[in-house]
Amino acid sequence: MNNDEPTSNGGLIRLRLDISYDGEFFNGWAKQEKLRTVQGELERIFGFIFFAETPLTCAGRTDSGVHARGQVAHMDVPENKWREIEAQGLYRLNRALAEDVRVLAVQVADKDFDARFSALARTYSYRIADGAVGPLPLNRKSVLSWPDRLNDVAMAQASDLLLGEHDFTGFCRRREFATTIRTIQSFTWERTTEYLCATVTADAFCHSMVRSLMGALTAVGEGRKPIEWPASMLNATERASDVPVLPPHGLTLEHVRYPSQAELAARAADTKKRRQRPDYRESVHGSH
Amino acid sequence: MNNDEPTSNGGLIRLRLDISYDGEFFNGWAKQEKLRTVQGELERIFGFIFFAETPLTCAGRTDSGVHARGQVAHMDVPENKWREIEAQGLYRLNRALAEDVRVLAVQVADKDFDARFSALARTYSYRIADGAVGPLPLNRKSVLSWPDRLNDVAMAQASDLLLGEHDFTGFCRRREFATTIRTIQSFTWERTTEYLCATVTADAFCHSMVRSLMGALTAVGEGRKPIEWPASMLNATERASDVPVLPPHGLTLEHVRYPSQAELAARAADTKKRRQRPDYRESVHGSH
Repeated sequence: MNNDEPTSNGGLIRLRLDISYDGEFFNGWAKQEKLRTVQGELERIFGFIFFAETPLTCAGRTDSGVHARGQVAHMDVPENKWREIEAQGLYRLNRALAEDVRVLAVQVADKDFDARFSALARTYSYRIADGAVGPLPLNRKSVLSWPDRLNDVAMAQASDLLLGEHDFTGFCRRREFATTIRTIQSFTWERTTEYLCATVTADAFCHSMVRSLMGALTAVGEGRKPIEWPASMLNATERASDVPVLPPHGLTLEHVRYPSQAELAARAADTKKRRQRPDYRESVHGSH
Repeated sequence: MNNDEPTSNGGLIRLRLDISYDGEFFNGWAKQEKLRTVQGELERIFGFIFFAETPLTCAGRTDSGVHARGQVAHMDVPENKWREIEAQGLYRLNRALAEDVRVLAVQVADKDFDARFSALARTYSYRIADGAVGPLPLNRKSVLSWPDRLNDVAMAQASDLLLGEHDFTGFCRRREFATTIRTIQSFTWERTTEYLCATVTADAFCHSMVRSLMGALTAVGEGRKPIEWPASMLNATERASDVPVLPPHGLTLEHVRYPSQAELAARAADTKKRRQRPDYRESVHGSH
């Protein structure tokens, strides 16, 4: 944190939270009336600690049953309240939360930091134990069991064809007025002695996209579909009806990547500089 | 498997099973009337598959709540029944078992292989997430949560003093007529970003020994006891009353070490040779 820069904003300070959860007993991230959700649990605890309604914004709104090791969220809290509990903040938050969600770290963030809009990339993993044994018992809540051996070489080849910027309408649950153009930056497969693990990084994902991609790729891994089949559905105009959506418990949000603190600050300074230029309104909003 | 050697014995064949389980919903390994146990579950399934009562012998009789990644057991089954299902054996066993116990491998073993008595060493791990955060939610069933930071350097020094052959009566639940002399072969500590992991290998362990050792060592890690304290209880004549037994869920049986197949065979051949010598009775049982 740069002490020369004010981080409070009208008495509020922005916190960045790094969060992990076991999705099994959550109805996903997003708050819903009468259902247990990660956002709902966290906002309730924060409200209790800060005596304030504190809406939480996250990087990846995970579905019901999906896990997270590296979810990131931000919230604005009264600076004086935070300073009172800062030293014991992490301990108090985790003590108040149930064991299936943990705040791994909490820190005062740059006021320009936005967990959702500052994120450069999200990384998800999907684990499948393919074969007679299934997942190790201690890992069974986060690894899908698949009865037959999958051809991971074919799946990796099919994944390579998905790299880059495409319209993923074929793999997404449609939402009105929302773009489904995304850029897959990397897509790798690793076989351990226990399971196959796919790791996919994109600027962002649309709804159920990773699980749909995995559904298409496992069809290739089973030999039911050719290697080119998943990529053939890129830039489709509607959701592919024959792509199964794999179960949520194999999926984990692993990591969210942000610009460095220095880059964030530089960007903020740059924005500020532009706002101080007399031609700012013209250059940004165009002529009137 | 050496095809020159008969592996069946009166129509029976010896199987070696490598087994993993999540101990949470088991009342330990050992069969008990009306309780769910690992041995009870496995023997029931094997009885169902082989139409035979098949007592199972394991390397480490874990307590209620203790996990295993590398448990080993043996059993004798009718050779003809095994040959019938061999190709699908692993798949059928695991399909019949609940997801919290898995047979990782099943193979025909040398008739001299004994899961308990052939074992050269057992390795257990104990995991403790010490600090404000606690275990990652997906690992919370196998990692103990400890609210304060432990001094792992002091704990490692205290562990070093436990190496070698000692009478561990001070750390064991006493059993009549059973020796409590054991040899600790290695005792290491590793700190990951998430937890502290102790890994301890001995020829064998007596009842609740690892959890008692961990109780003594965490007292050192907290600074409540000096580094020499755990070793001062070696060769005691009764159980130390001020050693807490840590909870079972942090404990996992990781690995059992056996002589190689060649060593087992050599030992068996050696035994056979001695039995064929005319002076065998004298040399083994002494003079009459």
